[in-house]
Amino acid sequence: MAKGIVHYEVGEQVDIFLLIKSATKGVASNGKPFLTLILQDQSGEIEAKLWDASQKDEEMYVAQNIVKIFGDIHHYRGRNQLKIRNIRLAEPHENVSASDFVETAPMSQEDMIDKITQFIFEMKNANIQRITRHLLKKHQKEFLTYPAATKNHHEFASGLAYHVVSMLELAKAIVNLYPSLDKDLLYAGVILHDLGKVTELSGPIATNYTVAGNLLGHISIMVNEIAEAANELQIEGEEVMVLQHLVLSHHGKAEWGSPKPPMIKEAEILHYIDNIDAKMNMLDRALEKVKPGEFTERIFALDNRSFYKPTFHK
Amino acid sequence: MAKGIVHYEVGEQVDIFLLIKSATKGVASNGKPFLTLILQDQSGEIEAKLWDASQKDEEMYVAQNIVKIFGDIHHYRGRNQLKIRNIRLAEPHENVSASDFVETAPMSQEDMIDKITQFIFEMKNANIQRITRHLLKKHQKEFLTYPAATKNHHEFASGLAYHVVSMLELAKAIVNLYPSLDKDLLYAGVILHDLGKVTELSGPIATNYTVAGNLLGHISIMVNEIAEAANELQIEGEEVMVLQHLVLSHHGKAEWGSPKPPMIKEAEILHYIDNIDAKMNMLDRALEKVKPGEFTERIFALDNRSFYKPTFHK
Amino acid sequence: MAKGIVHYEVGEQVDIFLLIKSATKGVASNGKPFLTLILQDQSGEIEAKLWDASQKDEEMYVAQNIVKIFGDIHHYRGRNQLKIRNIRLAEPHENVSASDFVETAPMSQEDMIDKITQFIFEMKNANIQRITRHLLKKHQKEFLTYPAATKNHHEFASGLAYHVVSMLELAKAIVNLYPSLDKDLLYAGVILHDLGKVTELSGPIATNYTVAGNLLGHISIMVNEIAEAANELQIEGEEVMVLQHLVLSHHGKAEWGSPKPPMIKEAEILHYIDNIDAKMNMLDRALEKVKPGEFTERIFALDNRSFYKPTFHK
Amino acid sequence: MAKGIVHYEVGEQVDIFLLIKSATKGVASNGKPFLTLILQDQSGEIEAKLWDASQKDEEMYVAQNIVKIFGDIHHYRGRNQLKIRNIRLAEPHENVSASDFVETAPMSQEDMIDKITQFIFEMKNANIQRITRHLLKKHQKEFLTYPAATKNHHEFASGLAYHVVSMLELAKAIVNLYPSLDKDLLYAGVILHDLGKVTELSGPIATNYTVAGNLLGHISIMVNEIAEAANELQIEGEEVMVLQHLVLSHHGKAEWGSPKPPMIKEAEILHYIDNIDAKMNMLDRALEKVKPGEFTERIFALDNRSFYKPTFHK
Amino acid sequence: MAKGIVHYEVGEQVDIFLLIKSATKGVASNGKPFLTLILQDQSGEIEAKLWDASQKDEEMYVAQNIVKIFGDIHHYRGRNQLKIRNIRLAEPHENVSASDFVETAPMSQEDMIDKITQFIFEMKNANIQRITRHLLKKHQKEFLTYPAATKNHHEFASGLAYHVVSMLELAKAIVNLYPSLDKDLLYAGVILHDLGKVTELSGPIATNYTVAGNLLGHISIMVNEIAEAANELQIEGEEVMVLQHLVLSHHGKAEWGSPKPPMIKEAEILHYIDNIDAKMNMLDRALEKVKPGEFTERIFALDNRSFYKPTFHK
Amino acid sequence: MAKGIVHYEVGEQVDIFLLIKSATKGVASNGKPFLTLILQDQSGEIEAKLWDASQKDEEMYVAQNIVKIFGDIHHYRGRNQLKIRNIRLAEPHENVSASDFVETAPMSQEDMIDKITQFIFEMKNANIQRITRHLLKKHQKEFLTYPAATKNHHEFASGLAYHVVSMLELAKAIVNLYPSLDKDLLYAGVILHDLGKVTELSGPIATNYTVAGNLLGHISIMVNEIAEAANELQIEGEEVMVLQHLVLSHHGKAEWGSPKPPMIKEAEILHYIDNIDAKMNMLDRALEKVKPGEFTERIFALDNRSFYKPTFHK
Repeated sequence: MAKGIVHYEVGEQVDIFLLIKSATKGVASNGKPFLTLILQDQSGEIEAKLWDASQKDEEMYVAQNIVKIFGDIHHYRGRNQLKIRNIRLAEPHENVSASDFVETAPMSQEDMIDKITQFIFEMKNANIQRITRHLLKKHQKEFLTYPAATKNHHEFASGLAYHVVSMLELAKAIVNLYPSLDKDLLYAGVILHDLGKVTELSGPIATNYTVAGNLLGHISIMVNEIAEAANELQIEGEEVMVLQHLVLSHHGKAEWGSPKPPMIKEAEILHYIDNIDAKMNMLDRALEKVKPGEFTERIFALDNRSFYKPTFHK
Repeated sequence: MAKGIVHYEVGEQVDIFLLIKSATKGVASNGKPFLTLILQDQSGEIEAKLWDASQKDEEMYVAQNIVKIFGDIHHYRGRNQLKIRNIRLAEPHENVSASDFVETAPMSQEDMIDKITQFIFEMKNANIQRITRHLLKKHQKEFLTYPAATKNHHEFASGLAYHVVSMLELAKAIVNLYPSLDKDLLYAGVILHDLGKVTELSGPIATNYTVAGNLLGHISIMVNEIAEAANELQIEGEEVMVLQHLVLSHHGKAEWGSPKPPMIKEAEILHYIDNIDAKMNMLDRALEKVKPGEFTERIFALDNRSFYKPTFHK
Repeated sequence: MAKGIVHYEVGEQVDIFLLIKSATKGVASNGKPFLTLILQDQSGEIEAKLWDASQKDEEMYVAQNIVKIFGDIHHYRGRNQLKIRNIRLAEPHENVSASDFVETAPMSQEDMIDKITQFIFEMKNANIQRITRHLLKKHQKEFLTYPAATKNHHEFASGLAYHVVSMLELAKAIVNLYPSLDKDLLYAGVILHDLGKVTELSGPIATNYTVAGNLLGHISIMVNEIAEAANELQIEGEEVMVLQHLVLSHHGKAEWGSPKPPMIKEAEILHYIDNIDAKMNMLDRALEKVKPGEFTERIFALDNRSFYKPTFHK
Repeated sequence: MAKGIVHYEVGEQVDIFLLIKSATKGVASNGKPFLTLILQDQSGEIEAKLWDASQKDEEMYVAQNIVKIFGDIHHYRGRNQLKIRNIRLAEPHENVSASDFVETAPMSQEDMIDKITQFIFEMKNANIQRITRHLLKKHQKEFLTYPAATKNHHEFASGLAYHVVSMLELAKAIVNLYPSLDKDLLYAGVILHDLGKVTELSGPIATNYTVAGNLLGHISIMVNEIAEAANELQIEGEEVMVLQHLVLSHHGKAEWGSPKPPMIKEAEILHYIDNIDAKMNMLDRALEKVKPGEFTERIFALDNRSFYKPTFHK
Repeated sequence: MAKGIVHYEVGEQVDIFLLIKSATKGVASNGKPFLTLILQDQSGEIEAKLWDASQKDEEMYVAQNIVKIFGDIHHYRGRNQLKIRNIRLAEPHENVSASDFVETAPMSQEDMIDKITQFIFEMKNANIQRITRHLLKKHQKEFLTYPAATKNHHEFASGLAYHVVSMLELAKAIVNLYPSLDKDLLYAGVILHDLGKVTELSGPIATNYTVAGNLLGHISIMVNEIAEAANELQIEGEEVMVLQHLVLSHHGKAEWGSPKPPMIKEAEILHYIDNIDAKMNMLDRALEKVKPGEFTERIFALDNRSFYKPTFHK
Repeated sequence: MAKGIVHYEVGEQVDIFLLIKSATKGVASNGKPFLTLILQDQSGEIEAKLWDASQKDEEMYVAQNIVKIFGDIHHYRGRNQLKIRNIRLAEPHENVSASDFVETAPMSQEDMIDKITQFIFEMKNANIQRITRHLLKKHQKEFLTYPAATKNHHEFASGLAYHVVSMLELAKAIVNLYPSLDKDLLYAGVILHDLGKVTELSGPIATNYTVAGNLLGHISIMVNEIAEAANELQIEGEEVMVLQHLVLSHHGKAEWGSPKPPMIKEAEILHYIDNIDAKMNMLDRALEKVKPGEFTERIFALDNRSFYKPTFHK
């Protein structure tokens, strides 16, 4: 595969396809309109200016379209910028599609759903099993394509499902070490904890918060849905309330958005598992970009810390 | 009516009926069992020790029973205590009932429900009106008898309904001054905001948190119920989500138990109205107990402050 | 009246009078001087660049002058900008005055002072009444023209008086619902609470903090003046200290600038009333600018929250 | 002088005069009244129980009376207690007075006032000098006898003046090292900063907060008095406001009770000097009570820390 | 084995050996001395009063001695108490030793040291391996007997080593899931992170903080020792500093006692692993004591929360 | 000496030598490269743009080189900028050296080391004296040239030594007033408290954090070195640990970077002395730049406050 756009150095020439993530019109100091394009491929993003943009340019170069660009890499205010020498829309016969330019989970949707289904299949508590299966099935399509967040961690296509799969593996390892844990409950908590994000977020690409996402949040949305699911399935045991509690408390503290802190052992552990998987994802992605002996850029969701890559790490 | 138990002075004799709020067994330093009784009437509570308690005493003097006590008031470790000289159970013909000994709202249940019904009746937005009416009807019986809290404010029988009635009056005054407010929405928010307490709390007497109250809380409980009500009534407008948001955000901040802060104007105002009515109730009750020129005892829910009653107040 | 400057859309032509709020000189990348003008009318502000500004331009186009501008609206870095095609000073015969371009309270100064005077007239406690009347009279002129703040809420001409009038109405409604409140005290607290702002702030236009404002603040300034007023009027009752306490504590908490928290019931309620009126003002102004189904921009003084305008609100 | 009451060990006999600090009546488990006496001399306090107290005992053994006690020291719940074997009131001919039993500053009132007067005498800025002299003279009598606080530091007779004298010495040393400091301003700040305590506190013995102390606090009280003093002395320079600011800001932060943080260099330094002198006083008194190699009890005003006395300190 | 002391119910008779954990002398209201004994076996503790204690009793019944007690269980102020009917010291021929009465890790010292040694054996980075082995060997004896803390978690004999073994297992599981982790570094961090506790704490029984523990803390102590070890072993790579960093940052935040937050990926993960193992230990021990459908007592180190044991857990 | 670069006004011509602090390459909107130069002399810094920079320019105009510039002062975005009309490298015969352009302490290195040596010479506790002397000697060269910080206070050449000298003078004055202080211990604490900065920071010019500085911090580094010094000198008394504690706790609180708060009296006082000297330095430098009647710019390390220079200060 071609070199990703973020790996070009200043001065290098570029001649590649890129997806337009956003296009904004401006007026230059000479009074002429220009477009600021954010272009992306799977490796990341770069900014480019299209000077003296015509009316037609404005119509063609819009978000979600794919373009072929010839140009070179400049340095501007501390970041790389792509200087456009030639630009055109990709043509159908060139056979490129938007999904080729979007970062995606390193596991296929099929493999992910198989894995999760297996965990549900092995549950022994029927109430927990039926509610989990019902809700997963209900949202399966979005669940398999949505990111887990708009930024911070797993903010890529299918990031939500991939986050759940990783957490299930971690949960399984922990259950083996601490057998007093109720594994059905913990696995169900993992599968349901962020499922409300399919309603909170707008979709897999150019992800944003929906109005319901802003006003209710994924936690309250899913607590509601567990109640509805139990209703439809005519399930009445304490498991319903306990599952709601796991979702409700998975952010750990009121000030982090959980109206109730964990008050069930599995809820406490769910919170840690969520934390470890999210932080490992952020750390790996930040450390990938630096060399041994260097510090990463500051990571907002990790209290704005920089991390060091030891020289004895390759 | 007889003088309330909290108004007796040290040294005075007592010969009255009291309700046993709780009874706990202990063993004295001489090795004999005794009972610690918390006794109450509408004016408040007092502690009493029943020394050398027999097996039969233990069985008779339990919470919720009414006793006739003859004794006198002592001072012990900074509080009044009732020294029992004689005690017996009240007899049927004496015609006393538990509800005579419990503090209650200063308005009848009929008047309260009439007033609230009137507010609902005048709503113009049918979606808001139907959901509010449906949920009030569903929980009306408990709503009219439960306290609004286990302590802090309106912690008396029918306190929940009385808190709502006061808030409605205040909401009406505010709506008149700031006509940009959506009054249907604000009134519905007032009526529903604490309705989940009928599930969160155990009942009007010896009030405690239920398991659901602990694990989910009245906010999540009611957000669920609004969704269910809309379902049953087949209502689909944005009003459903907005009502859920009002309930969800009425504590104002994450750290005060609201997973989402107010993001609708009426939600913000609902939070203030709730605050004013609760604080006025606490303040009035604390100031009642002191004379002009004195400070009240510290009020925990008001940041543990003492309040001063000016000498020019009678 | 003409369309306000903030209501023009990108691409529209403009040919109107505007007041210069500020003018700053810069040097363009071609080495020539230019002026950055902030222009305003009652609807709000817009930025404009005057390129190749001559020495004479610099002298003419200064803050507080009124200009006639012909130009059009561009979009620049996420905000509208006015591109100047022609600019000149307004001429005397054109009959425009600075006060036409400044946002002002929606009630005349006369009506406001009448209303407040009526509240003072009805006070029964002579000590409270005399101090309040004395201080209001002393600062009446500035009180009627100053804003209530440099930003956040009521930051317009006569905003201070208008904030007090609204709070008095709200206080009256609350007093009716909670008759245990001392209304003389509460009304006096409302009238005096922000009166120190006539010393803390520099004036009604281009409002800033004075040195005394920075070093002492409006709270300490007014606490001083109450003492002086009592001195001059030879008043000695506890009312003096209690009024000082109301002013001293109206921000509610030490960390919000009140060296003593409220310790009098009316002081507590004064804090809530101030809060509600300030927040309603901010909310109404922010929501005015958006359409149903949209969120406002973030409001700093409301914990940086955005507010949603429901689709069922017109 | 006799051994102080806190220096007796468990088991030792006691036959000394003590001042009654407080006397509280209780009822023993045998139904008989008893008195709990807190007794003190200059070394500190001890508790004693007077069992089977008669009506006459109750009348004789009240706060501020001096008693002669014969008894011995017991250990009860982690503290020493004085077991009374014989008790009687001191008789006039025995020639003991309450002031012999109260801790007091280690410097005479005359020496303290001389020292402070000397600092005022050397001031060069007449405005600062006159205001400081005026206010000190106005409150001189109370200033020389009051404690600096009800607890924490300098909580002994004349503690307020002694705290000021120590701070002046420290200020002088600092001014010598950092000559850019305005010494008139700094010395005046030291002398005035806590002078409001003569109004905030009730007096030198059994010290408590007055109502004005609670509602206004010593900071606002003194800010007022500086304004009044300037008025009376017809002083109008910026020094008045700056002195007010020094008093206003000497607690350093809003959350520590200063409505404005220091915004003048001398205000910042005043805050540090106050801190050092107060903390040295607390530390010396706590460390006095322990042996090398031991930790002090926790000191609340020092973030509840214990301090260690190194073994190489004698 | 015999029934543990905490499992006896009120009213039951007791005739068992117990270890005296502490003995404190008091004086009863009748003037006679008594001893308050805290007695323990592996199941936990109970309080007992020995009334009318003679001089000889005081000498015999001291901490660390074993006694044979005949008596019965009472309830006193919300807790069980052992009423002593007969007490005597255990005799040599009865063959009981202090270690029989102390809670201890559920794994032998041999098994623990074998397991840890295996982890060290498999390390590939020689610098990390040698430092870890050196320090473990140096403190091995104490490491295998000390608790991990004085309270909160693993506060039992050999708790420190057991905590490390559990964490190693958890670290191994996590390394398998996130292969980007440097396992040598993480395992070494686990082994060394709390090793300074052998200096910070006083020993395995009646554990307290040493002076060095108070003044330096286990973190600074171990950071020092890593430097010394590297010195002695003449190791100079960056591993030394990185290991110091892992120890330094394992509490996660400055306010939790780490002067530097984690700035290495493995340091971040070490913090989570420490957290999970400590919290699981606390939770399991608290939940053990309650029945399904009940809440545990509040757990201080878990933000003072109570935890619920679901009814569907056995 | 010539007028410092920060003292030129807008419009003035400039013809002086300046040191290049940093040089960054950019690409102008016309596509041509340019250099952004930060230039400095002892008075401070100014920015300049070198347009149309050639390859040779890029090589010549790099950090640490000295240039002769002819140009004039412009105003750009609220700051002065130097418009370059002519630029060339300084020539050897012009006899200018980098150290002429760097701010430095107002005391010679010789005087500083003499003064500090005298304090050490007078110590009576041999253990404290020997450790202090040993560590000072070990790092003397860097100690005399390093700044005390990268910003905030004493961020100039030899700032570290100068900060220590000032603190020693202040410590001496305080010891004279509070003779209960152990002066050997306090002086040693002053000398050692920041000595770890010679390892934490990169050097006297263009100062930055080293990797060890980031991962360990100057506190842990020096605590280590005290242990090593004691080892080498075969010193074993409690002084070693107490000195470590002073260094460890000199930031005062966990959240300010001290893993242990002060638990020794001299440690507490050391923290205050450090604070006063640092804050006086910041305040003097900020106030120097403004005229009486003006406020300084906000000072980040003083809670982002502005300070006022009274009009009665010259």
